[in-house]
Formats: sequence, structure tokens, C-alpha cells
Amino acid sequence: MKILGYLERFGSSSRMLILTTLTFVILGTYSVYAQDATADHAVFVANNIWMMVATFLVFIMHLGFASLEAGLTRSKNTVNILFKNTFIISMGLLTYAFMGFNLMYPGDFSIGQFFGFAGFGIATPEGADGLIAYADGGYSYWTDFIFQGMFAATAATIVSGAVAERIKLSSFMVFATIFVTFVYTIAGSWKWGGGWLDQMGFYDFAGSTLVHSVGGWGALIGAILLGPRLGKYTKSGMKPIPGHSLPLVTIGVFLLWLGWFGFNGGSVLSGDPGPVSFVLCTTSLAASAGVLGSIIVSWFMFKKPDLSMALNGALAGLVGITAGADVVGITSAVIIGFVAGIIVVFSVVSFDKIKIDDPVGAISVHLVCGIWGTLAVGIFGVGEFSFLTQLIGVLAYGAFTAVCALALFLLIKVTMGLRVSEEEEMKGLDITEHGMEAYPDFQIT
Amino acid sequence: MKILGYLERFGSSSRMLILTTLTFVILGTYSVYAQDATADHAVFVANNIWMMVATFLVFIMHLGFASLEAGLTRSKNTVNILFKNTFIISMGLLTYAFMGFNLMYPGDFSIGQFFGFAGFGIATPEGADGLIAYADGGYSYWTDFIFQGMFAATAATIVSGAVAERIKLSSFMVFATIFVTFVYTIAGSWKWGGGWLDQMGFYDFAGSTLVHSVGGWGALIGAILLGPRLGKYTKSGMKPIPGHSLPLVTIGVFLLWLGWFGFNGGSVLSGDPGPVSFVLCTTSLAASAGVLGSIIVSWFMFKKPDLSMALNGALAGLVGITAGADVVGITSAVIIGFVAGIIVVFSVVSFDKIKIDDPVGAISVHLVCGIWGTLAVGIFGVGEFSFLTQLIGVLAYGAFTAVCALALFLLIKVTMGLRVSEEEEMKGLDITEHGMEAYPDFQIT
Amino acid sequence: MKILGYLERFGSSSRMLILTTLTFVILGTYSVYAQDATADHAVFVANNIWMMVATFLVFIMHLGFASLEAGLTRSKNTVNILFKNTFIISMGLLTYAFMGFNLMYPGDFSIGQFFGFAGFGIATPEGADGLIAYADGGYSYWTDFIFQGMFAATAATIVSGAVAERIKLSSFMVFATIFVTFVYTIAGSWKWGGGWLDQMGFYDFAGSTLVHSVGGWGALIGAILLGPRLGKYTKSGMKPIPGHSLPLVTIGVFLLWLGWFGFNGGSVLSGDPGPVSFVLCTTSLAASAGVLGSIIVSWFMFKKPDLSMALNGALAGLVGITAGADVVGITSAVIIGFVAGIIVVFSVVSFDKIKIDDPVGAISVHLVCGIWGTLAVGIFGVGEFSFLTQLIGVLAYGAFTAVCALALFLLIKVTMGLRVSEEEEMKGLDITEHGMEAYPDFQIT
Repeated sequence: MKILGYLERFGSSSRMLILTTLTFVILGTYSVYAQDATADHAVFVANNIWMMVATFLVFIMHLGFASLEAGLTRSKNTVNILFKNTFIISMGLLTYAFMGFNLMYPGDFSIGQFFGFAGFGIATPEGADGLIAYADGGYSYWTDFIFQGMFAATAATIVSGAVAERIKLSSFMVFATIFVTFVYTIAGSWKWGGGWLDQMGFYDFAGSTLVHSVGGWGALIGAILLGPRLGKYTKSGMKPIPGHSLPLVTIGVFLLWLGWFGFNGGSVLSGDPGPVSFVLCTTSLAASAGVLGSIIVSWFMFKKPDLSMALNGALAGLVGITAGADVVGITSAVIIGFVAGIIVVFSVVSFDKIKIDDPVGAISVHLVCGIWGTLAVGIFGVGEFSFLTQLIGVLAYGAFTAVCALALFLLIKVTMGLRVSEEEEMKGLDITEHGMEAYPDFQIT
Repeated sequence: MKILGYLERFGSSSRMLILTTLTFVILGTYSVYAQDATADHAVFVANNIWMMVATFLVFIMHLGFASLEAGLTRSKNTVNILFKNTFIISMGLLTYAFMGFNLMYPGDFSIGQFFGFAGFGIATPEGADGLIAYADGGYSYWTDFIFQGMFAATAATIVSGAVAERIKLSSFMVFATIFVTFVYTIAGSWKWGGGWLDQMGFYDFAGSTLVHSVGGWGALIGAILLGPRLGKYTKSGMKPIPGHSLPLVTIGVFLLWLGWFGFNGGSVLSGDPGPVSFVLCTTSLAASAGVLGSIIVSWFMFKKPDLSMALNGALAGLVGITAGADVVGITSAVIIGFVAGIIVVFSVVSFDKIKIDDPVGAISVHLVCGIWGTLAVGIFGVGEFSFLTQLIGVLAYGAFTAVCALALFLLIKVTMGLRVSEEEEMKGLDITEHGMEAYPDFQIT
Repeated sequence: MKILGYLERFGSSSRMLILTTLTFVILGTYSVYAQDATADHAVFVANNIWMMVATFLVFIMHLGFASLEAGLTRSKNTVNILFKNTFIISMGLLTYAFMGFNLMYPGDFSIGQFFGFAGFGIATPEGADGLIAYADGGYSYWTDFIFQGMFAATAATIVSGAVAERIKLSSFMVFATIFVTFVYTIAGSWKWGGGWLDQMGFYDFAGSTLVHSVGGWGALIGAILLGPRLGKYTKSGMKPIPGHSLPLVTIGVFLLWLGWFGFNGGSVLSGDPGPVSFVLCTTSLAASAGVLGSIIVSWFMFKKPDLSMALNGALAGLVGITAGADVVGITSAVIIGFVAGIIVVFSVVSFDKIKIDDPVGAISVHLVCGIWGTLAVGIFGVGEFSFLTQLIGVLAYGAFTAVCALALFLLIKVTMGLRVSEEEEMKGLDITEHGMEAYPDFQIT
């Protein structure tokens, strides 16, 4: 009405003109708005592609873990390790779809700040047909699920390495299932699900603590409860048990490094060019510095350039940078990685001194360097980061995960048993648990 | 002219005004249209990137197949298998460029609904300079070619596994070349090239039938004509011939799973976030359920957790979901994969019972689960899918491919011979056909 | 002021009308410009994602090289080779960040056309906060660094293969560090950094010369200075020393082929659909033709289908197409690859005849086929390419790199020593240099 009165101020020819003009302008504006949606849609498509690529990279980490773990252990336990890793990713995705995703990201269904559950199964919030933009328009609901699902199973995979060559297969399968479905997801909700640690200002970009330390605590508890492998710590001192295939270890580490581009790069949760590519740089340079750190220290310490240590140095650098890859500078990233590479060598040696047997160095890489990386955010992070808050986060995750893992392993121990018999361990799990050999054509020494 | 008359209705000042305004509006509109093209261009760029990523993933399936097949056979035939797989992808891309692409997608050059050919060689429809948007503006002509080319060779690779360890190399090379160039492409044109089965409403999203069953029929015919490997079926019963490297098998299966994200995800033919990410979820969850299905059944059946079966379960789930990955719900995908995982175990055991020797289980994985997946669209598909039409498609592809493969293998048999001599088979094809060993430094038992 | 005078020509109602209209038009135009930025931003995001994907693919080439080189040599030197390759990528990225990137792309800091240095370290031109569009708005500064950084280390990796099994580890580490940091980068600046060869019209799309020949010249000088491995050329003729794992070689070649999609595809420096996908087609078809060329020639020459040659044929085709992947037609790409596949076989045989021992064929693949590919641009290139200019480029790079490599290797020889002792070579570098075995569980012959 007001508009009509306003128009009456003009003569008839002018009125016609104004209407004509308005028509043009409205058409133009309509195009602009239609256009606006399209340009936003293009960014949405691109972001979503990025997150899907990141998903593939995290998926391939499972092959990386399988290769690394198999290569660092003896050929008589290879089938067992490959079986565990195939099981973990499959079980992990299914339980994550069944309830894990909704435990980790409870959204409106939080009960306080420590727990929440958005219900069983997965479906887009608007029902089966409504595929929607998600996370500030960045990617689809399904992309969110599958990206996070690939993350979930890694925690259990970390445990797998530390308990290798002596744990009963079925016992591990039960542990891994409960650990992935409940422990990882509930702990994750405290930060990534918007829970109490998130509100306190704790920062863990891609999971130095939420993924790696959580897995690492499970690994530590498992390795302690199981005890060392037969023949590792003898009266005449520690006897190294070398891994059976260094090429397999190298393939594993390179695939993990590759996967970390998705693990960290995808944790930006968008394809925004600046932040994502910056994260790729900090991630790569930390890994590189980790390799050099480990090479230098181990060369001094053992008087030989040690390939396993060089490779563990890459993983140490990667775990170390994971908590702060987006908030530390390039030089800081190099320092964090280099220190992680040094730490991992001392840590591996130290755990052997206190006779905690970890066949693949998982506790040193994932737990120790995960803690280092999380605290490093409080030291090197550019922005409002508190060392104390980071420490609280580390301790909270440590306490919760260690208690859960302890309870779980003890429960399994008294019900199913945890460790294979001495005879089975000597013969190897491949023959005794699976009735198969990994390399039947080869003469094994 | 009409516009000028229209303008005369206004006073001179108003005329000036209207021209000024129009100039602004036209400029604005021009920007909008320029803009429109740009936003569409952005989606085009993003889509095309997605299809290129999918292409890389399908490419890496060829390494997956090579690793799987080599790992599941004996070390004395490893060079032979790696050679075949290197040849197949190379020959496949070249013949697809030479004529396969234009046989499969004849476009306006269809002769009826069963056959068509758009000419030799590849070139953009508008000539060497004209790189154009393609397939509803989704991606470039060259992307289309290279994506489809990566698919083409997989069909022959599937055959390779079933005839391994006893087929003559040159005979296989001839078979594979003709099979990829003519049989796969003409059969493919019936559905993906818009032929008679497409018009009948037959649905096969990414090729449970068009790729996997087609390869599987070739595998079945080849395995029957060749007969079993020496020493497999003896008077005292079936004697398993274990694969020589389970790590290689595991690498193969994980790479195939990874590649399937491109095989199925790329078959959406755009980077549209909702559909593509949904397909990644159905694909992954079917693979996971396949693993669990195979583990459970084989554990019951053999009283041991069988790694080969767990890994074949993943492939079974992947083949099973391929036909309907975009049209079945999440729960249905889990069921389809789980059932495929169960089917593959029974199928492997059954083929051994009827003494059809398939060293890698290719017939069970690709043919049997390919049929299951295609029929499953008629059961679980959300939309207008007919079980009967799916069955007609399965039978039509079966009849055509089996007849072609039979004619081709028989022709080769009478001209070149199909199977190596007993002595060659005993010594292994690596030494006798290639004069090389795969592992010369290792002591082979 | 002029605008106000212009407005006074109209009556008051018309003035009001024009202001109203202008407001609408300005709002519309504002939206259009805001929109413009957004659509451009979408293309920027997509381009950047493409370049990051290309980065990952080039990264995985380092695993490809490690696998290839390890597989083609003896198991007693495997740890040594894996160690070198892990070191090279780590050192390469760090020195590239420290100074290599700024030596290769000196920008405004060029001193003449032969050298320039933009300072130590990396940082966005606008400081730590300013993440900017780069290279005509195509991708971010950080993406540029990490993509180019992945390239840098490949040159040293090429050398690694040719000097394998007899060079002292520490000597190689010193050589590789200086070669990557200074020789590769300064040479690279002549073309990609806009130096004298770029201004002369020399063309090398993705590095047949800048990467592969540069590495190849280093390889040739190294192999000559070191001399052949013990027992390779005896009085009774050349004695082949077969590689210890053909599956590892195959994994390596397929990963390199995969990586080449990023190496060549990323060298378009944008995700522009037409050019990038065209490059993927020329790249793949040249690789395929290389395989066929090598198979045919080696089958005739050795009377056996040779797997190593087939795989080297793929690499030959890939190196050959790298200089002109974007400027030659499809048929030309097939010819270039096919000829490269033939050349590589003759080259391998010829180097053995003149007793230059190259355990992995690196000189034939990277140097010889790199030269062929660079010259082929002058023959097949569509556009203004001069064979003579291409030849000048080849010779200039040859002279500079060969002289640098010679000086460097000689300096190392007189200071640190270049070759391990005969005893160490016999025992293998794994035990003598690293105190480790690659396959401790296996019986080695």
C-alpha cells in the first residue's frame, strides 16, 4: 500500500517507467539471488568433494596400519594381524552407523556435557529423501558420517599393534568392538561433540588426544595386562624381536603419511584453500622433521642408522602435529615434529627398560607423542590456548580411557581369557588360531 | 522499432532517464549472465575434479586386482600374473581409445538397439580444439573417456584370476584383447549406451552385471574349458592350494575397496554431494557387512576364522552393492552386503564340489555376487524396479557373454592351444613362459 | 558534481525516481559484485582442491620409487634403499621450505636470468595471517609450496636407483641434500622460475628434462664414478643380477603411474576441466603404449615376455610424455610413448654393453626417455615449438647438471669416500650399514 501511494507522486508516464524499471531490476535481482544459490552450491560441491577425498585418505590409513603392524611383527602372526585389521574397519563402520555416530555427536540429545545419544541408525535429519547441506553448509550428512566413521576404527587399530603376537583373537575382537563403539565415541563427544572439554577451551584439532592418545592408553593397558612376548626380556637382557618385512613397514608408513593429509586436512571440515593447504604444510614438515629427529638421535644412540626408528619418526611427527596443525606456525611445526621424532626413540627404549613389550612402538608413537602434541598447542599455538587446559584434557582422556580399558580387559580376562597359551604363542597365531600360513611357499627360519 | 515507439510515450527528460536506467540494468544483467556462466563453470570444474579422482581410484583397482591375484596363487606363477595385469590395463586403454569407447557409447550411430559404432579413435565432438562440457555439462569429454577406459579393462582382469596358473600367456592375451574390445563394450552398450535393456528399464548402477558378471561369465567358461590345476582334485578329495602371500592379498583387497569409492562414487557421473556421499555410505557398509557375513559363516563352517574368506567377503559385499548403490537404503545395503558375504563362502565351497577350479574365487565373487546384487535391486530398490526385468538383464548378459567367451576360448584352443603343458605347469609359468623368478633371493619350498 | 548537474536536468519527481532506481540498481550491482567474488571463490576452492589432490599423488610417487628400487635390487640391500627413500622425501621437503622454493621461484629477486633467491623460509607474501590466492588466483601459496616440494625430492630419488647396492649411505645423503637443495632448484629456475630458457621459448610441461633428465644426469655420473657392482661384468660376459621382489616392482610402477596423474595433471596449475583431463589421457595412453612397445621389442630380443621391461616401458612412456603432455595430440602421445618403450629396452641393453651398471634402469628411463620426450615436443607439439630450442634446453640442462654432479661426487669421493668396501658390498648394506635385515624370518639363498 505504501508503495502504491509513493508511486502516485509520479506522473503516469513516469509511473509506467518506474514499473518497467522495477520489472527489470526485480528480474535482475532475481537472477542475482538465483545466482547466489548457485555460487554457494558450487562451493558446497567443492567442499564436499574435498571431504570425500579426505575420507578415502583416512580409509587407506587402515591398510597403512595393517601393513605397518604386520611388517613389524613375525611372519608366524601375519595372518592374525591382517585378520584383525580387516575386522576392525568393517566392525567399526557398522557399529558407528548403528550407534557410534550418534553417541559422538549427540547434538540436541546431550544429557549434560558428558554424554548424549541421538538414537540408533543413521538417516538425514530431514528423512530418507532430504539430503542436506551440513556443518555450516560445508558438506552432506552422509559425507560427515563416512568421514567420521573412517576415523573411529583407528583407535582400536592402535591398540592392536601393542597387543600383537599374544592376544587371543576373539578376546581382541570383543575389546575392539566395545572400545570403538562406546569408549572412543563418548570420550570424543567431550570435545568434538561440544561437551565439557570443548566448552572449557581445550583444543585438539584432529585428534592427537581424541584419537591417538585414546588408542595409546588402550594399548598401554593391554600391553601391561598381557605381559611381554615369550623370550623378549630374558635374564641376559632385552632381546629384540625384529619385524619380518621392512618393505611392508615402509609401505605402511608412507600410506599412513598419505592418509594423514586427509586425517588433518579433512579436519578443517571444509575445502577452504588457505587453512587446508596450510595444514598440509605443517603436517608434512612435522613428519619430515620427525624422520630427521629420529634418525639423528637413533644414529647417536645405536651407532647405526635405524630404518624402523626413521619410520617411527615420521609417525611421531604426524601424531605430534595433529592437535595443532592449524594453529601453529611453520617453524613451530618443524620443532614439534623434530621433538616428537626425538621423544619416540627415547620412549621406545624406556618402555623396553621397564619391560612393557610393545611390538610396533604404538604406545610411544600414539600415546607419548599424542600427549606431546596436545601440550604443544599450549606452547606454540597462535591464539588463546592454555597449557593448563591442554593438560587437563590430556589427564581427563587418560583417566577415562585407562579406566575403561582396564575394566574391559579385566572383564575379558576373567571370562574369555586374554592371552593365548605358550604353545600357541611359540607356534604362532596363524597356524593355531587360523590354520593358515601367510607365506606357505617360503622357507621360514 | 516497437521499443522506440514505446519510448516516445515519455517526455524527453524521462526518455533520457529511461535510457540511463536501461544502461545500468543491462550492465547489471550482463554481469548477472557473465556471473551465471561463472557459477555454472565452478560446478563444472568441481564435477570434473570429482570424476578425475574417481578415475584414479578405478585405475588403482588394477593394482588391487594384480596384488589379489598374485597373492592368492603360488609364487611360481607370480611374474606371469603381474605381466598379465600390466598388459591388460595398457591394452585395455589403447583399444578403448581405438574403438571400444565408440562401440560402448555409439550415440547417434546406433544401428537398432543392439549395436552401434561411432568410428575409430577419440576426439572431442567439436574437433581437436573444442574441449567441451559433456554429459549434461558435468565433465569434459576427455574425463568421460579416461573414466570409462579404466572400467573397461577390469572385465578381462576378472577372467585372469579364474584361469590363473595354467593358461598359456599368449592365448590369454588374445582372449583378453578381444573380450575387452568387443564383448564388454557391445554388451555395455545395451544398458549404459542406451540400448534395449536400458529402454526396458533394466537397472545396473555401476556394473554388478555389466562389469562383474560379464567378467565372471568369462571366468566361468575359461575355468571349465581349462579344467582344474594339477593336483587340486585328487582321488583322496580336494586339496587346497594356498596363495603364497596373504599380505599381498590384503593389500589387493584394501586397494579394491578404495577403488570402489571411485567405481561406484564416479558412476553418479557428477559430484552432486547428496547422491555421491550416499553411495559411498552404501558401498562401505555393504563391504563391511560382507566381511562380517563371511567371517561368521566361514568360522561356523571351517571352525577357524578364515582371512581369505573375510577378504573375499569385502569384495562380495562390494560387487553386491554395485548394481543398486544409489537406489537402496542404508539398512538394505547392509543386508545386501551381509548376504553377499554369506553367498560367497557357500559358492566357493560349491564350485570346489563340482570341481571347477577357480584359484582366486573370481567366479563366486564377481559372477555369483554380481547376479545377487543385480536381482537385489528388484527386491530392495526404492523406485520403479522390476525383479523380472532385472532377471531378464542377468540372463541376457549371461547368454551373450557366455556364448562369446565359449566361441572365443574354443577358437583359441584349436588354433593356439589354451593350456600349458603339464611340465610347464609343474615348474611354474614364471620360469617356463618368462624365464624369470618373482623372488630369486628367497628359498622356495 | 557532474552527476548532480546531470540530475538537475530532470524534474523533481523524475529525480526522485532516478534516485530510487539507482538505489535498486546499485543494490543489484553490489549483489552482482559480491556474487562475482563468490563464484570466483568457488573456482578458486575447486582449483585448490585439484592441486592438493595432485600433491598427494606426487607424494605417493616416493613410495612408488622406494618400492621399485627395492624390488629391482637384492634383498641384502633393501633396508638401505628404504632408508634412503624415507630420508630423501623428508630432507627434500625441509630444505625446500628452508631455501629451495625461493631459489626455484625467485620472482622479483632474480639476479639476471640464471639465478635468484627470494630469501630463507616460507611465508605468505602478505605475512603469517594473509593466506592468499596465488598464480592467477588458482590456488593458495601453501598449496604451491607443498606441490612443488613434493616434486623437488624426486630428482634425488632417481639418482638413488642408479647408485644402489654400492654407494656409502652417508655419502649419498650428502649428495642428495646438496643436489635437491641447489642443483635441481637453480636449474629449475631457468624454465619454471621464468629464467633464460623460459624466455628463449624452451618448453617442458611437467619436467621430462627439469626433473627426469636432471635426475638422470646425476644418475649417470654417479654410476660411472662408482663403477659396476661386483660380479656384474665378468670375463665370461654380463651376468644379470635379478631384483629380489617382482611384486614390489609392480606395486612401485603402478603407484608411479598413479602419481603421474598428479605430476602431469597438477602441472596444468589449475583444475580447468579440458586441459587437465586431456593431459590425463595423453599421460595414460603414452604409458600404455610404452608397455606395449617394451613388450614387443623385448619379446623379439630376448624371446621371452619380460616383466621388468614391460614395467620399465610404462615408466618410459610416462617420462616421454611429460614434456609435452598438454601440447601433443592423442595419436602423437601414443607414438611418443610407444617409441619411449622401444628406446628404453635398447638403452638398458646398451648401457650394459658399455659396462655402466644401473641396477634399476634409471638412466635409461629418466635420462634417455627424458631427452626423447623433450625433443618430441619439437616434433609433435601443436604450436610454436622449435626442435633446436628444445635441443638447446636438453644440452644446457645436461651440461649444468653433469658438471655439478661430477664436482659434487668427486668432492665427496676425496673427502668421505663414495663406495663401500668389497666386503660390505658382498655382505650387503643392510647388515653392514644398518645392522638390520629386511626379511629376518625368511631363508635367503
